[in-house]
Amino acid sequence: MSSEQGSVGIVETQYRTFAEPPNHLELECGRKLGPITLAYETYGHLNSAKSNAILVIHALTGDAHAAGRHQLSDRKPGWWDNMIGPGKAFDTDKYFVICSNCIGGCKGSTGPSSINPETDAPYGLDFPMVTIGDMVHAQKLLVDSMGIDQLLCVVGGSMGGMQVLQWAKEYPDMMRLVIPIASSARLSPHAIAFDAVGRHAIMADPNWSDGNYYGRAVPSRGLGIARMIGHITYLSDASMHTKFGRHLQDKACPDYDFVTEFQVESYLNYQGDEFVKRFDANSYLYLSKAMDYFDLSQPEGDLRKALSAVRAASLVVSFSSDWLFPSYMSKEIVSALRRNNVDVSYAEIQSDYGHDAFLLEVETLGRLITNFLEYAGPRSSDER
Amino acid sequence: MSSEQGSVGIVETQYRTFAEPPNHLELECGRKLGPITLAYETYGHLNSAKSNAILVIHALTGDAHAAGRHQLSDRKPGWWDNMIGPGKAFDTDKYFVICSNCIGGCKGSTGPSSINPETDAPYGLDFPMVTIGDMVHAQKLLVDSMGIDQLLCVVGGSMGGMQVLQWAKEYPDMMRLVIPIASSARLSPHAIAFDAVGRHAIMADPNWSDGNYYGRAVPSRGLGIARMIGHITYLSDASMHTKFGRHLQDKACPDYDFVTEFQVESYLNYQGDEFVKRFDANSYLYLSKAMDYFDLSQPEGDLRKALSAVRAASLVVSFSSDWLFPSYMSKEIVSALRRNNVDVSYAEIQSDYGHDAFLLEVETLGRLITNFLEYAGPRSSDER
Repeated sequence: MSSEQGSVGIVETQYRTFAEPPNHLELECGRKLGPITLAYETYGHLNSAKSNAILVIHALTGDAHAAGRHQLSDRKPGWWDNMIGPGKAFDTDKYFVICSNCIGGCKGSTGPSSINPETDAPYGLDFPMVTIGDMVHAQKLLVDSMGIDQLLCVVGGSMGGMQVLQWAKEYPDMMRLVIPIASSARLSPHAIAFDAVGRHAIMADPNWSDGNYYGRAVPSRGLGIARMIGHITYLSDASMHTKFGRHLQDKACPDYDFVTEFQVESYLNYQGDEFVKRFDANSYLYLSKAMDYFDLSQPEGDLRKALSAVRAASLVVSFSSDWLFPSYMSKEIVSALRRNNVDVSYAEIQSDYGHDAFLLEVETLGRLITNFLEYAGPRSSDER
Repeated sequence: MSSEQGSVGIVETQYRTFAEPPNHLELECGRKLGPITLAYETYGHLNSAKSNAILVIHALTGDAHAAGRHQLSDRKPGWWDNMIGPGKAFDTDKYFVICSNCIGGCKGSTGPSSINPETDAPYGLDFPMVTIGDMVHAQKLLVDSMGIDQLLCVVGGSMGGMQVLQWAKEYPDMMRLVIPIASSARLSPHAIAFDAVGRHAIMADPNWSDGNYYGRAVPSRGLGIARMIGHITYLSDASMHTKFGRHLQDKACPDYDFVTEFQVESYLNYQGDEFVKRFDANSYLYLSKAMDYFDLSQPEGDLRKALSAVRAASLVVSFSSDWLFPSYMSKEIVSALRRNNVDVSYAEIQSDYGHDAFLLEVETLGRLITNFLEYAGPRSSDER
């Protein structure tokens, strides 16, 4: 690993495989999955007490590449590079940061585009439905395989935040701290509706062919539309006004036809086009459905009860203009944890960036996290 | 016209044709359109002074059938039946109510599914782009043809409200009152984005065939998706929680597959399926694009200046949970009118119904409108 100021430098995605048959992972849907490969990256060094590990979990379309570059020539670094590195919020001079991909995805972990060992062909829709809980169970195998008995912290935003909450609920002794960001204990019907329409768009694409498109033309128009819908929900009305207003693309007057005219349309087209180059449509179906199913209050029927085992000190963060995961959702989590006498801090960051703020409000979010980790972080007796 | 208590009874859609060549309507896009047919309905009686006419303009997917039933067996009455009738807010014992359809649509007025007289085939995408201004110019021809020199009031919600504002700007002497409801002087980039994705979904449907699908299979999947997207934007987070929550359809446990499971998904599917039976996909393209183009502040560059000719007393209404046409948009209109010393009242109705509230908050909206019409309505010297 080379290094440059503030960067973790050149990094490599790693892969680990578990749950080899007959030791399949039992999924919540009742089916079994195995073997399971997880893609992950690590930054910094695990101390000898193994007490400085932080697990970072990404959002719906993210991947294990959270920081640094795979090659010097990479145009962009990992997705949370502004938060992870020497001297940054997740200070790799102090902490050992693990970023794990999730099952069901398409970024190196077992998912619908993986080869089904029973057929030697891609799973497609034969892939079993996976839940947020299943993703966490697989990540637990990864952390176990590193010989880490307790993580210092589990942190993530959006779908990553859901996994953080699931970790805290299921493995209360496995971490000292949790930071769910721009997240929720359950997806709202509003968000389920957007997901459902995105899936409709994918499935309506003739190239989708019931999910059997591997090795052929992929359903890129449908997936592009799903991505556009997603992107609208990640921005706020205010940020769209600032970013695009009603400006036309490269002209002063409209053409009065159905080409892309407004800058906001052009932006969405670009996001859709870029996305289909890097993401698998079936994975989009599975991961969005996993988010829809997520309801941390079940089966207990009550969020406070469901979180009664949680022991990790918590920093819950939301953003004022996030209308996909509005602040009231974070406050529900905070309220449930407080009633359980868990040590919980809550911050609503004032931001116009909408749901995307968890990737963009680096300074405010970074300061909050730095302080939270410093205050509640590695015991001073720990070897660094 | 038969009558029943509070209802205008059995009504019939009427049609009038104008702009016969060579007297085409000159469109804002520079092209010409003619002949132009407008579908409309009327309720109540025009008084001899012709001073009690109220023009009602519908939203994106509405039609001329605002009140009553076409046949006794009709399952549902017109779209604003709870507001129009004897003793209702638009009291047909007092007022002569005209509801006009708009050009570009598919409910009996000239639009892309109409026969192009030059080719004797449906226009399809040869139909010229029409704007909110063009729609209003056509409606002016309709009102003129009735011999009405001044309307008592022009009223409408959403896209209808845009037309109301355009009427007030362009024909300041043609009405005494205007009531734009849940509307805006310009569409936000946020709403443009949703429209653009809806159009993408239609155009991605292989049945769309560049708009040449008449007489063949129609792009119902694409149009259904566009409608689903629209419907999400018409509801609020709160109303979706109340209406659907996270309830599953007809079962307690998930099936863990990609069928429609949540009630909110089932609702959207139903809305999409019903819509494609009654609406033309090309009309959806044209009308949504007309909304995108709408910017009342242009070409003057400033909303106050653009509205400087307006003389009608105005009642501007918005709804607290409407995030598609948020209250700040209505407040911009109110502010511009106030600075021009126009008599303007503004009401933000507290409602959880989102943008749909203009169709649902009958009691509160009805009371406001009744009072506004009574106070500012037909001069006492007018014959009733």
